[in-house]
Amino acid sequence: MSSVLTARARDLDADHAGTDLRSRFVLPEGVVYLDGNSLGALPTGVADAVADVVHRQWGERLIASWNEADWWGAPTRVGDRVGALVGAAPGQVVCTDSTTVNLFKVVVAAARMRPGRRVVLTDPASFPTDLYVTAAAARDTGLVVEHVSPADAPARIAELGDDLALASYSSVDYRTGELWDLPAVTRAAHAVGALVCWDLCHSAGVLPVDLDAHEVDLAVGCGYKYLNGGPGAPAYLYVAQRHQNAFDQPLSGWNGHATPFAMAPEFAPAAGIARGRVGTPPLLSMLALEAALAAYDDVDVADLRARSLSLTGYFLECLDTLLPDLEVATPRDDARRGSQVSIRHEGAYGVVQALIARGVVGDFREADIVRLGFSPMYLTHADVLRAAEELVAVLDGGEHERPEFAERAQVT
Amino acid sequence: MSSVLTARARDLDADHAGTDLRSRFVLPEGVVYLDGNSLGALPTGVADAVADVVHRQWGERLIASWNEADWWGAPTRVGDRVGALVGAAPGQVVCTDSTTVNLFKVVVAAARMRPGRRVVLTDPASFPTDLYVTAAAARDTGLVVEHVSPADAPARIAELGDDLALASYSSVDYRTGELWDLPAVTRAAHAVGALVCWDLCHSAGVLPVDLDAHEVDLAVGCGYKYLNGGPGAPAYLYVAQRHQNAFDQPLSGWNGHATPFAMAPEFAPAAGIARGRVGTPPLLSMLALEAALAAYDDVDVADLRARSLSLTGYFLECLDTLLPDLEVATPRDDARRGSQVSIRHEGAYGVVQALIARGVVGDFREADIVRLGFSPMYLTHADVLRAAEELVAVLDGGEHERPEFAERAQVT
Repeated sequence: MSSVLTARARDLDADHAGTDLRSRFVLPEGVVYLDGNSLGALPTGVADAVADVVHRQWGERLIASWNEADWWGAPTRVGDRVGALVGAAPGQVVCTDSTTVNLFKVVVAAARMRPGRRVVLTDPASFPTDLYVTAAAARDTGLVVEHVSPADAPARIAELGDDLALASYSSVDYRTGELWDLPAVTRAAHAVGALVCWDLCHSAGVLPVDLDAHEVDLAVGCGYKYLNGGPGAPAYLYVAQRHQNAFDQPLSGWNGHATPFAMAPEFAPAAGIARGRVGTPPLLSMLALEAALAAYDDVDVADLRARSLSLTGYFLECLDTLLPDLEVATPRDDARRGSQVSIRHEGAYGVVQALIARGVVGDFREADIVRLGFSPMYLTHADVLRAAEELVAVLDGGEHERPEFAERAQVT
Repeated sequence: MSSVLTARARDLDADHAGTDLRSRFVLPEGVVYLDGNSLGALPTGVADAVADVVHRQWGERLIASWNEADWWGAPTRVGDRVGALVGAAPGQVVCTDSTTVNLFKVVVAAARMRPGRRVVLTDPASFPTDLYVTAAAARDTGLVVEHVSPADAPARIAELGDDLALASYSSVDYRTGELWDLPAVTRAAHAVGALVCWDLCHSAGVLPVDLDAHEVDLAVGCGYKYLNGGPGAPAYLYVAQRHQNAFDQPLSGWNGHATPFAMAPEFAPAAGIARGRVGTPPLLSMLALEAALAAYDDVDVADLRARSLSLTGYFLECLDTLLPDLEVATPRDDARRGSQVSIRHEGAYGVVQALIARGVVGDFREADIVRLGFSPMYLTHADVLRAAEELVAVLDGGEHERPEFAERAQVT
């Protein structure tokens, strides 16, 4: 059976040879890295770029680099680079702060852009920080948060009508990997005059998001997952051009001022997306992200999407063949699947630890999820087969029940 | 006359040889760098530390570094290191976000900690971002911002009485370098039951701030000035231990949750200073700051303060001797001077540019300030004399009036 799968992996890798970008990454030998949806791998050019920032730009040129190396322009320059991957024309994305901070800006600004409307709608299964900061921003602005699954959102949006200020959703569920219907939710919100915000953390760089084409209003996302920007890489904020003049975000800082060096006592927001900036950005991290994005040079996200679906689809084939009784939490329908496959297993924590010991790195998510992310840029179908085979070995051998894997490390 | 000054520089450098830490920094040849109050110089260990983070921690160990390298603990670990420089016992400082974002947290939290009190007091000459974000936070919380100089603050605070929620000041004026009376303003605020916040951007690392000793409530500051953390290094937030349980800051993010990996749907703030955290921090920048702080190993800030006062005092001596008509904006009284000397000159912009061309790097601040920062760690009295002599050459030669120096570059 495995020989059939092996032949199939070989064929699929041949079919997709044109999108094999592994040579653009530095990866440890012998590891199948299925956690690029948590921390992307290191692109080849980053180390040299960061060394140049440290040695030459900072160490030698010091303060002059603000102009010479255009440090000042980095947030909008990197923002445009990210924008190109999510279907945003230039001038609509800024690289700044964290996803959480950017979502706070969005919810408060949306309340101000839709005065008199009472509700912000979001997914109860959102990544927790989205829930926390949405609740916090709602508290500050008098909005009420209502929790509705993205699948049920269009119907609920129609009911809410002009009571709805903002529908704020993740385009891919961080736990199950389900890809939600961004166009449908967006259309429903617009039909009642509300705004939408999409969290792109688990979709940017692996599938076409087409923000402009779908007339999305607002979006946020992080730089350290599929974008490979490095640990805690700065996040980004998208504000559609038509909304920028009205985007009145609460974190008024000098980097977002119309004339930052005039040192004016009163705040006046910059024209355009620069008003999403706040304080001085962490440039080592931001310029590492910029260098990392070069891994996307001459790459069409639609081609990456095709490769990603082939990888996850093939992994599902492997599971069907090798572990037919396993419960898969991720939709099998291509149109409803992001770039990950999640498995429900009561021993999920131990399964993940045992897989890591075998060189297959995924992660555990509460309560019972083995989460395996498939970055299409540096994974092959051969890697996918190996991951499936190691999973078979773990489960057949009961390795996940061994105390060294099953006992939860102290989590702070 | 200059030979007297030369001899004096030699004597002072001999007297202060014990605090000459230039060997801990990488600095370009031939440059007298008087802009460490804008971007600190590169400490020697940083490049290797950052390379290790990129190559080994990120590139080889990938997601495992969250535990192995304790990335998760970096904000509080680096926070404690900064705390040691500003007189804060461990557990009260967290490295996170930007100064602007941290000040937003502080003002909103202060409004919640002092309900019913109406006023936040701040300096009209504050660095603009402090004014902007204080106004923004006041708007969101119903506070009224009143502008009063720190010199007049104690009297005004007494008048305001229980109308005052928060007095928020910078300990050193970013333009003039005046060091304000932190203990007096703090005592006055406490006498009426209000809170104080101090912005330490221009004092941390060059003079003893003694937050705990003066019973300061809240403080913020950046990592990239005298702390030498690199361009846009993450900022920090101090919340005195006695206030931490009540510190209800508006940016609820998963990094500040009591049980961040439990993925609970409801926010519950972490115990202690960790509740000041928000999203995933930019680790390359934060770990560069951590490595940079090693330049402070075995250094007593009080000794740096003595060296700093000697450097700025000697620079004032040089000006008195060489340029007696120059208008100095910085107080001559040691007790009222930070670690910079600012000169008022109608051609200030051109003076700064002409000085840079001669290898003396300071900066211009609106409207007429030549701002010269004296980081005591890497400057000698000989450097100070050279700066004064180059200034004489610029002014005597009218170099600052040359078009290539006097004409303002386009400022975005």
